[in-house]
Amino acid sequence: MKSKERQEVRVFAPATVANVACGYDVLGFAIDAPGDEVLVRQSSEPGLRITKITGDEGKLPLEAENNTAGVAALDLLKHLGISMEDRGIEMEIHKKMPFGSGLGSSAASAVAGAYAVNCLLGEPLSKKQVLPFAMAGEASADGAWHADNVGPSLLGGMIFIRDNAELDIAELPVPENLWVAVVHPDIEILTKVAREILPTEIALEKVTQQVGNLGGLICGLIQEDYGLISRSIHDVIAEPNRQKLIPDFYKVKRSALGAGALGFSISGAGPSVFA
Amino acid sequence: MKSKERQEVRVFAPATVANVACGYDVLGFAIDAPGDEVLVRQSSEPGLRITKITGDEGKLPLEAENNTAGVAALDLLKHLGISMEDRGIEMEIHKKMPFGSGLGSSAASAVAGAYAVNCLLGEPLSKKQVLPFAMAGEASADGAWHADNVGPSLLGGMIFIRDNAELDIAELPVPENLWVAVVHPDIEILTKVAREILPTEIALEKVTQQVGNLGGLICGLIQEDYGLISRSIHDVIAEPNRQKLIPDFYKVKRSALGAGALGFSISGAGPSVFA
Repeated sequence: MKSKERQEVRVFAPATVANVACGYDVLGFAIDAPGDEVLVRQSSEPGLRITKITGDEGKLPLEAENNTAGVAALDLLKHLGISMEDRGIEMEIHKKMPFGSGLGSSAASAVAGAYAVNCLLGEPLSKKQVLPFAMAGEASADGAWHADNVGPSLLGGMIFIRDNAELDIAELPVPENLWVAVVHPDIEILTKVAREILPTEIALEKVTQQVGNLGGLICGLIQEDYGLISRSIHDVIAEPNRQKLIPDFYKVKRSALGAGALGFSISGAGPSVFA
Repeated sequence: MKSKERQEVRVFAPATVANVACGYDVLGFAIDAPGDEVLVRQSSEPGLRITKITGDEGKLPLEAENNTAGVAALDLLKHLGISMEDRGIEMEIHKKMPFGSGLGSSAASAVAGAYAVNCLLGEPLSKKQVLPFAMAGEASADGAWHADNVGPSLLGGMIFIRDNAELDIAELPVPENLWVAVVHPDIEILTKVAREILPTEIALEKVTQQVGNLGGLICGLIQEDYGLISRSIHDVIAEPNRQKLIPDFYKVKRSALGAGALGFSISGAGPSVFA
């Protein structure tokens, strides 16, 4: 253990709302709660060992190389050239959010795992530099490589991803008076199913609408134009297909908009919805 | 003639670069030159009469109701409830840019026509309020309804169009040190042909790339991030198809980027290119 290192670190990684209507795979924001907690501590026994997982209904593997948080941490350690043959780290994972909720559950675990180890080591990397390792952790869980959950869970706020492969991201300002309500219906939707329900080809006219709305949303956020934000939060690609998976989606949407919400759509792959 | 009205007005409407790589149908900016001039004056002879057109190689009709600038002006007069049965306006149109250039030639004429008449009448409408009438003029020429040429030609600067049907637009800031070079090859491309060459369906993956780039470009412009602007000015939808219409497109593109341009793509429907 080096001087700057810490003995024990507990971190929290928040749930996230990805896609944000018109920002399919390119936009996401963090919410205050829920989120996952990861605790890491130095250990005399070599290797990265997951000693405890709570809140997972027994679903998550204890083997670090098969666990989202573990993979993220191991990927970061490998990048730093730290061999786990002659040093030890113990990890506890406390899941505090449901699986398949559309709130970035695996992303939160991956972020917490990678960031906790980075903190334990005395923060050799900046938060932003931790991103690719958290991404690797999440990719091990769902196979896809997109930063719209991992990005905001790690960095907070609203994150725009220009290019997922290059991890070219920008932090967007969020107007102070903007609040979000998230509702999680008691059903589970697998990201895989939610992806398969999407069309593989999109009509050019709809592309133009989507591009217009995404641009409008970004302008609205930066310029604090609530009207523009509201007119822009429309998803003509994923929502019309994915709403089928969520009972009474349009009924709830009408209620939310009727009650004054600026917008209403599906969080990530669903079933959670936000307004 | 009412007190605030003027006897004679000459206006200039600039050429515009539409699409701007990743902003197909949603983004455009004005350039200093070239552009069209329209001169209007009060006349004792009833009706809106086009008395002179120069620079059009005899291609444009003198009948106001068949002429882009004329239609825009008539549409504005109709909206204002001004009958041309008992008053007269003469219009001269001086085309100073080529047809089918991809620089918004018909849009510039439409903007100049509508805006000139608005000025002659003592500006009953704001510039932004003139937009729908200029749009009507351009739509009479090319049949499409998109504001990415008309918007910036009327308002100047960089204009983002969230929704063409609703004319929901936003003015974007342009960093002071940003310059554009426009080259007009000596060929003509009809907008109709350039539209027909586009695929009607776009792969979802490309949509995500395009949305990411457009959002990145807007962020880059607002945040004056030249690197982000450069990484974002890529068009994966129109350019790969339309470059076929422009000889040596990629050769010139490589030269421009090699010389330090932030980006290079087709202006509007082409053949003009910008860097």
